[in-house]
Amino acid sequence: MSTAPLGSLTGAAAEPPADTPLTEAPWGREPGATIEPYQRPSRFEKDVVRTVANPNGQPSASAAKTPHHLLNGTITPNGVHFVVVYGGVPDIEPDKHRLVIHGLVKRPLVFTLEALARYPTVTRITFLECGGNSTLLFSPQPIQQNVQVLHGMTSCAEWTGVTLSTLLEETGIDPKAKWFIAEGADAPHLTRSIPLKKALDDAMIALYQNGERLMPANGYPMRLLLPGYEGNMNVKYLRRIKLVEEPAMSFWESKTYAQLLPGGKAYQFYLRQEVKSFITQPSPGLTLKEPGLYEISGIAYSGTGRISKVLVSADGGRSWAEAALQEPVLSKAFTRFRMPWRWDGGTAILQSRAWDEAGNAQPTRTEFVAKRGELKAVPPLTAFPNQHFNAITSWAVDSTGEVKHVYA
Amino acid sequence: MSTAPLGSLTGAAAEPPADTPLTEAPWGREPGATIEPYQRPSRFEKDVVRTVANPNGQPSASAAKTPHHLLNGTITPNGVHFVVVYGGVPDIEPDKHRLVIHGLVKRPLVFTLEALARYPTVTRITFLECGGNSTLLFSPQPIQQNVQVLHGMTSCAEWTGVTLSTLLEETGIDPKAKWFIAEGADAPHLTRSIPLKKALDDAMIALYQNGERLMPANGYPMRLLLPGYEGNMNVKYLRRIKLVEEPAMSFWESKTYAQLLPGGKAYQFYLRQEVKSFITQPSPGLTLKEPGLYEISGIAYSGTGRISKVLVSADGGRSWAEAALQEPVLSKAFTRFRMPWRWDGGTAILQSRAWDEAGNAQPTRTEFVAKRGELKAVPPLTAFPNQHFNAITSWAVDSTGEVKHVYA
Repeated sequence: MSTAPLGSLTGAAAEPPADTPLTEAPWGREPGATIEPYQRPSRFEKDVVRTVANPNGQPSASAAKTPHHLLNGTITPNGVHFVVVYGGVPDIEPDKHRLVIHGLVKRPLVFTLEALARYPTVTRITFLECGGNSTLLFSPQPIQQNVQVLHGMTSCAEWTGVTLSTLLEETGIDPKAKWFIAEGADAPHLTRSIPLKKALDDAMIALYQNGERLMPANGYPMRLLLPGYEGNMNVKYLRRIKLVEEPAMSFWESKTYAQLLPGGKAYQFYLRQEVKSFITQPSPGLTLKEPGLYEISGIAYSGTGRISKVLVSADGGRSWAEAALQEPVLSKAFTRFRMPWRWDGGTAILQSRAWDEAGNAQPTRTEFVAKRGELKAVPPLTAFPNQHFNAITSWAVDSTGEVKHVYA
Repeated sequence: MSTAPLGSLTGAAAEPPADTPLTEAPWGREPGATIEPYQRPSRFEKDVVRTVANPNGQPSASAAKTPHHLLNGTITPNGVHFVVVYGGVPDIEPDKHRLVIHGLVKRPLVFTLEALARYPTVTRITFLECGGNSTLLFSPQPIQQNVQVLHGMTSCAEWTGVTLSTLLEETGIDPKAKWFIAEGADAPHLTRSIPLKKALDDAMIALYQNGERLMPANGYPMRLLLPGYEGNMNVKYLRRIKLVEEPAMSFWESKTYAQLLPGGKAYQFYLRQEVKSFITQPSPGLTLKEPGLYEISGIAYSGTGRISKVLVSADGGRSWAEAALQEPVLSKAFTRFRMPWRWDGGTAILQSRAWDEAGNAQPTRTEFVAKRGELKAVPPLTAFPNQHFNAITSWAVDSTGEVKHVYA
């Protein structure tokens, strides 16, 4: 593939002006609207929203997916951060919410939101990803959907809160403690077991999301943040942390979020989101209108640390070139990768493959299926047949410029 | 001042649980609401909004200020990014908007939004600040307002777009060109002159703000972004860039955004926002309820580069301690600084002072007034008597825990 130097951009997209290059539009003739206290996107961006499964609130899981094909950069704006909930979005009164830390501690303590605000806070940019993100790619045939439907259950935000290790210095830790159980305050009372060493590493009680208080469906007024760990473990509406000797073997960790392996066994406590990447532009639904220069752009991330390298192919993996990584490249955060690409009007298969600083490589789909298996039939869109899919995604461009999901 | 080690936090804020630490709240008993495609903050955060001057849209300037005392971290969420407009918020149809680059170029070109999207994009986190931010501190007496009113016309976001240098490679540059004039498409057709070397350095045509398209009042569908330069020069609704030999001496640059000096002279083309910091917590309106441990937290930034150091004082500048800077410390971006502080229940005067990597120091108010002057009388809240105020701000804590704006 060619990585066009800037000098060869000329004529790619712009046009010489006509004799009267600027005509006065209505918005140049009269004053505009007044300012709202809390502003919203333009009405012309009404399609930049999340797809919502279960919009009528039936008593089951519900998910909202981020429209990655319509975004750029690395921060996911709060309006479209992905969500998975099992009991709807609770309407929690912050003044009545409490967090208790108890169990194998020296001194159990209860924290109000006001109390937490007085402790030292930290800020970090990190991604969250549902273990079930990209699950449709376990299908034996590629499902014709866009990147929002296929990969929309991951987002990245700047989170601010109090480290869990700070609060555990307050309570003290009984040396027998090896795990802690986190529990949510909303109706499902989601319960997950987390190794205590994660609490002492980088776990946070998050209070702010991109500067403002957490969004209601993202855990308002407080959530557990476990950078790099499966989304479901980052317990929202956090009300209890109990230090224990053994994991709880809760419903969520022993059934829903255990990953099936070929032969009928399953991973247990498979906590970390693996190194992964996908191309967001071009992608299905974003048609190339004419041959010429385009930017291939996408997102890479790893639950282990920093992204070290992303390779991009335009010929289905026969040749690769190294993409530019947008600085700063942060640990366990989205990294935007980019490469200029000249489309000659023929067919192409676009792929990205990421590596992280620990040397982990994103697998090809063939490698992934050999280890993790695939379904025997195409699943319905609502199914979560398996989890932790992180293999390479392939987008095929045909000679009309249309982009489709393929296996290659 | 004491910088409390973590071990001394004990008992600062939390309480031992009662025998029945958790009672079941209404949101723990029944399912919550359905998910919206574009989510909004909790109804309990209705006060986390911008103060809006001129809410009835009278034909004059209008500003909306960021509530820094209610935010944390470094990213300003799009809902509350500050705004200054001179002709309301235009409702621009993106498909009809054009950007023309002409004047002293080899080949004038017109760019649609679709054309721009095909060029290489870049992402950077940077602050914007109105030259008139903090103008009320030119008052000879401290005005009793909170940090939102006093310093709310600065915000920080992740911006993504096409560098202006990329587009100028397309048009070519006539060697006679030394400046460019940027013009907005909304009714005031704001016009500012910018040195051409800024175009070749880090100027960007910004298309995305924290991942999604620009907010309407922040320049949708495209704006000029000049990292570190006075907010007004970052022309919104950008429709024209004309390369010229001399600056235009437009209304905005020769009158409104020229800074008065003692003796009646004025700065011209005083473009860069200086090194600055202020404490956001504690600050006026955030009362300390009882003696004990608190976090002093604030924002530092410089239009010249990275923040290198922030000192904090709790005794009006007699003694200072170095605050922790939240990593990553990025050039021309908000840097969050923090310091644990134990309030003994007595009076205190909190101050912060920042330095940048070029060695620039934030001035004391005495130093600043000696150079720049001050007003003779307390101005009305709506006045912009002078600009580029960057001296130290002082918050006095009295023995009841109330926080007031003082000069110290």
